[in-house]
Amino acid sequence: MERVFNFSAGPSAIPEEVLQEAQRDLFNYPGAGCSVLEMSHRSPSFQSIIDETEATLRRIMNIPDDYAVLFMQGGATLQFAAVAMNLAKRGQKACYALTGQFSTKSMEEGSKWVEPIIVSSSKDKTFSYIPKIDPASIPEDAAYLHICANNTIFGTTYWELPEHGNVPLVADWSSAILGVDIDVTKHDMIYAGAQKNMGPSGMAVVIAKKSLIDREIDPVVPIMLSYKTAMDNGSMYNTPPCFSIYMAGLMAKWVERQGGVPEMEKRNREKAGMLYDVLDNSKIFSNPVALDSRSITNVTFTLPTQEDTDAFLKMAKGRGMINLKGHRSVGGCRASMYNGLPLEGTKKLVECIKDFEAGKRE
Amino acid sequence: MERVFNFSAGPSAIPEEVLQEAQRDLFNYPGAGCSVLEMSHRSPSFQSIIDETEATLRRIMNIPDDYAVLFMQGGATLQFAAVAMNLAKRGQKACYALTGQFSTKSMEEGSKWVEPIIVSSSKDKTFSYIPKIDPASIPEDAAYLHICANNTIFGTTYWELPEHGNVPLVADWSSAILGVDIDVTKHDMIYAGAQKNMGPSGMAVVIAKKSLIDREIDPVVPIMLSYKTAMDNGSMYNTPPCFSIYMAGLMAKWVERQGGVPEMEKRNREKAGMLYDVLDNSKIFSNPVALDSRSITNVTFTLPTQEDTDAFLKMAKGRGMINLKGHRSVGGCRASMYNGLPLEGTKKLVECIKDFEAGKRE
Repeated sequence: MERVFNFSAGPSAIPEEVLQEAQRDLFNYPGAGCSVLEMSHRSPSFQSIIDETEATLRRIMNIPDDYAVLFMQGGATLQFAAVAMNLAKRGQKACYALTGQFSTKSMEEGSKWVEPIIVSSSKDKTFSYIPKIDPASIPEDAAYLHICANNTIFGTTYWELPEHGNVPLVADWSSAILGVDIDVTKHDMIYAGAQKNMGPSGMAVVIAKKSLIDREIDPVVPIMLSYKTAMDNGSMYNTPPCFSIYMAGLMAKWVERQGGVPEMEKRNREKAGMLYDVLDNSKIFSNPVALDSRSITNVTFTLPTQEDTDAFLKMAKGRGMINLKGHRSVGGCRASMYNGLPLEGTKKLVECIKDFEAGKRE
Repeated sequence: MERVFNFSAGPSAIPEEVLQEAQRDLFNYPGAGCSVLEMSHRSPSFQSIIDETEATLRRIMNIPDDYAVLFMQGGATLQFAAVAMNLAKRGQKACYALTGQFSTKSMEEGSKWVEPIIVSSSKDKTFSYIPKIDPASIPEDAAYLHICANNTIFGTTYWELPEHGNVPLVADWSSAILGVDIDVTKHDMIYAGAQKNMGPSGMAVVIAKKSLIDREIDPVVPIMLSYKTAMDNGSMYNTPPCFSIYMAGLMAKWVERQGGVPEMEKRNREKAGMLYDVLDNSKIFSNPVALDSRSITNVTFTLPTQEDTDAFLKMAKGRGMINLKGHRSVGGCRASMYNGLPLEGTKKLVECIKDFEAGKRE
């Protein structure tokens, strides 16, 4: 089977150039005498890899020196707990904005530790828009305000960050990091599962103000969740996910070679623009998301019936496009078009939508 | 730089055949149209990979059906906490045998949740032997007895498991799993960081009696630590470390092709035997470990002075052998000879030791 266009929400498409580089060096990493997969995490070769990965992320995201960059395990889901356990005292208030499944899961997981205050929700319209947050609803003594900045399942993005006064803003940018030009300094903490724009699954990247995380955590919290421990040990308190860190470095360097994150956003806007355009002009396809909230990395769309949906997915698959099925919790279709998905893929998808609308069936 | 012999304690040597297989398929996994690194964890291709990995581990380790096999993130260190948080009520007694750094860390991490009872320790002789455990020292109401079955840093192994009555036995077999023919049924739970005999870092494998882990955990515990959640969701409550699971499958299938775990143990005994033999007959090299406690995967050895040690490590490196330095906490030398380290590597090391002893310096 030839390589296809992969619209998966995550793990997701990786640029072919990056895959080729990883493949070339997989058997014997230059200068190391062994594969990255076998490399001691205490070796100079690996120290260079982790240092370069961090430095490249800092350059392409303009991360200031007073922010730490941490490589954590357990995916974003473990961060749902870690955010609460690091930033809040047990039972302290913390604010959550509900914009979909992951923000809700984050709130539920956080609620094991904090007293959650739901400051906004778009559940009333099936999470199809980003709800405003009234700054007055955020208690001054809240430990943080948590948002899921890009909602993978529902295809929405915070294009404007909420006002949050002196309460730290924590944003889950899993599905748009490196694909949207994020202003790090407007956040107190950002975290993201790697398996979208930063390589394979198995890692979460945390970018946090050092002053926010430089604190001892409650003694009951597992040490692997402690941001301070991770920071003080250069993300190597225990053996880190070396290959994931290496891949994140390759991805970041690829972004840099392409012209940086603004260039990525430009390309993603072009892809998303083409797709929204055809959806908005269709009589049978539609996108339910409010115009000002549309994601440029995850585009959801529906057809009138399940039969239509199945027929369209089959036709797209036959044309070499996979993983266009919507999340199992919502159905419909979804095109995740991360940095690794080339423009050509979107063009093929648009063509397929037009042909389907014109009555073609394959 | 050519490929060398890698004696790293972990991440560690992977058989060349496995690396070549991973390299071949890295760009486009057969039948998937994409790399394993890009593959949706909800795709049939990945479901086959995780199912096959589990099935192969079950076959080669003779894991009975009443044991679950879980793929967890966060390394063995997160399991130090997870063991306590899953198996014990908060404040319940739990027994620990101290045989080195990792068993001590495990006890310290567990102590955040349980009341630890230290039932044995070999700290009196720098952890150079496996201490006996008096069964009478294990309270009947203890949640578990925890041992670190192979001690990577100190080069010791429990060749006989302790008596533990009705108290569940939990063993950290990180550095010898698949390298020693373990009787799973004599344990209630086994866990192991993958980065020794099961591929790259970034994953821990948990093998546990289903009846032991089929319980709700305390509501404060992060959901990613819950064995029940992992078991009920086929290790995919969130996006799993897909590439690590794939690599563990390749490693397990390689073991099976070689003749299984007994064959691995035979080869490891041969390698370790050769090395212990030359050390025991040396006037300047020595191994400090009690004869009945010697590990066949991690062999520690010392030279009279730091100068000698440095000179030996330099000479070995010049001959294409890396990562022979002892753990930074103990110094000296250490040869970790996992399944991926060929006999040829040990032969070269033995030759180097003999030459060094004969006065050669390179």
